[in-house]
Amino acid sequence: MTEHHRLSGVFAPVLTPMRDDLSPDTERFVALCKSLLEDGCHGLVLFGTTSEANSLGLDERIALTEAVVDAGVSPEVLMVGTGLCALPETVRLTRHAVALGCAGTLMLPPFYYKGMSDEGLYRAFAEVFDRVADDRLRVYLYHFPKISAVPIGLDLIERLRASHGDVVAGIKDSSGDWANTSALLERFPGFGVFTGTETLMLASLRGGGPGCISATANINAAGLRELYDNWQTDDADVIDARVRAVRRAAETKPTIPGLKAVLARQLGDAGWLNLRPPLVGLDAAQQAELFAELEAAGYRLTRAAAE
Amino acid sequence: MTEHHRLSGVFAPVLTPMRDDLSPDTERFVALCKSLLEDGCHGLVLFGTTSEANSLGLDERIALTEAVVDAGVSPEVLMVGTGLCALPETVRLTRHAVALGCAGTLMLPPFYYKGMSDEGLYRAFAEVFDRVADDRLRVYLYHFPKISAVPIGLDLIERLRASHGDVVAGIKDSSGDWANTSALLERFPGFGVFTGTETLMLASLRGGGPGCISATANINAAGLRELYDNWQTDDADVIDARVRAVRRAAETKPTIPGLKAVLARQLGDAGWLNLRPPLVGLDAAQQAELFAELEAAGYRLTRAAAE
Repeated sequence: MTEHHRLSGVFAPVLTPMRDDLSPDTERFVALCKSLLEDGCHGLVLFGTTSEANSLGLDERIALTEAVVDAGVSPEVLMVGTGLCALPETVRLTRHAVALGCAGTLMLPPFYYKGMSDEGLYRAFAEVFDRVADDRLRVYLYHFPKISAVPIGLDLIERLRASHGDVVAGIKDSSGDWANTSALLERFPGFGVFTGTETLMLASLRGGGPGCISATANINAAGLRELYDNWQTDDADVIDARVRAVRRAAETKPTIPGLKAVLARQLGDAGWLNLRPPLVGLDAAQQAELFAELEAAGYRLTRAAAE
Repeated sequence: MTEHHRLSGVFAPVLTPMRDDLSPDTERFVALCKSLLEDGCHGLVLFGTTSEANSLGLDERIALTEAVVDAGVSPEVLMVGTGLCALPETVRLTRHAVALGCAGTLMLPPFYYKGMSDEGLYRAFAEVFDRVADDRLRVYLYHFPKISAVPIGLDLIERLRASHGDVVAGIKDSSGDWANTSALLERFPGFGVFTGTETLMLASLRGGGPGCISATANINAAGLRELYDNWQTDDADVIDARVRAVRRAAETKPTIPGLKAVLARQLGDAGWLNLRPPLVGLDAAQQAELFAELEAAGYRLTRAAAE
């Protein structure tokens, strides 16, 4: 195994803009990636749940990834979602991300079949790792039981780490369950346990975690970065409370449509409202309610023109 | 809308054989397709849940479908599974099946996002139908709440039928819940409501249903055909009891590994034991238990050489 860039900090699972014909809007996507990094994100997840990743085709994912790298974003700050149900597609996407030099891949388990044994999930991941067969591969397992409905338990992680070493670099723990996150941090010191929400970031940083990958980073990158930068200071709890208030406000509406509505409003760009079905946009009243909640939480809906 | 072949009878969701390197075994697949039709199936579903469909790549599905048609199986008896999470892939597979002349497509909803509204699921299906834009398209919606975790309710079906007419030809109801199947039959007379198990076939035929699409047809095509052919005779309940006994025996072990083990035994071909992870094969003791259960249910594990 070669020594490799270790990911830490605030990561945004980047929203994927769609044109009116529902094709991915490469220009808006690249622009958002750059502005999120300028606003404070340490890195980006291309094709997480928030990105509508599973509604995208393979060719679309590949083209978007290449466009971001071609536009000058360093692949060393990119974690690319590559876990699909189908073995050959997962291998193809993962190889592509590794070949581009992306620092990590975020890998869902094959999520169609439910109730699979740890033995089956172990073989599924191991088969992908072995086929990719590249010592630059760094995988972050994607644990999101409420959506994937295929949880990734601690014994499975232990077995994968034992057989594949540094390839198994970490996990995105989107359980939202501190008991699970703290168990991961305690059992696997040094493992890259990203929380799936900033509301658990402070506790996880205090427990040795590397940071968070949170949907809300798409609209509050600066706030999350401030929390990350100050977690060891006396200001941490005050900043944490501000960040939580914004998160609570955002959670009053469905996440992805809500975040896209905020970007559309901030950027004065209705193109950001498009979503691929089965997601459905907020109506005008829902948008107004969301904006009011956010402003009440101290969130700025207008951006300075210079930004 | 043009008049179109109406599907009915016993359909097998064909098991997909894998070579030792886990690539799909085209020769064994074609041979199974042919033998299932000879044994009594009216038609075949390529790429249902039993087929490990969601573990297959797009190119693999396309190649297998073409191989079956090239080998002389009429596309008029084929229903092809084409529903994926990703919009462009679902459209591509569906167009391919329609262009080949396949009589129907079996379409899962986009199954990654959970808890979507009927509005969102409506838009997802309608978007696919509108993009395929071929009046030969006949879609069977795939309702399998225990596995897909995205149910397809009656109001959604009504709306899709109202907007897209004959394109929405039927449903595979894999709920296993007679209350749901009977509600479908009553509310939508003439709709192609296939049951996902032969244990509900007799009741559904009596209620106007077209037949069943059942995993067990892979090993008991003749038995299911006998039940279908005799459903209006005095023998129906006796045949039904025999068929149910085999089904109960098969259900004592995980379905897909169990069915593959039975084929491997019957054909004397250990190649049939291969599975793509996350599925895991039965061990020798589990196989022996399954075979004993089946024999106790009157099932013949040996085949005449002529077959």
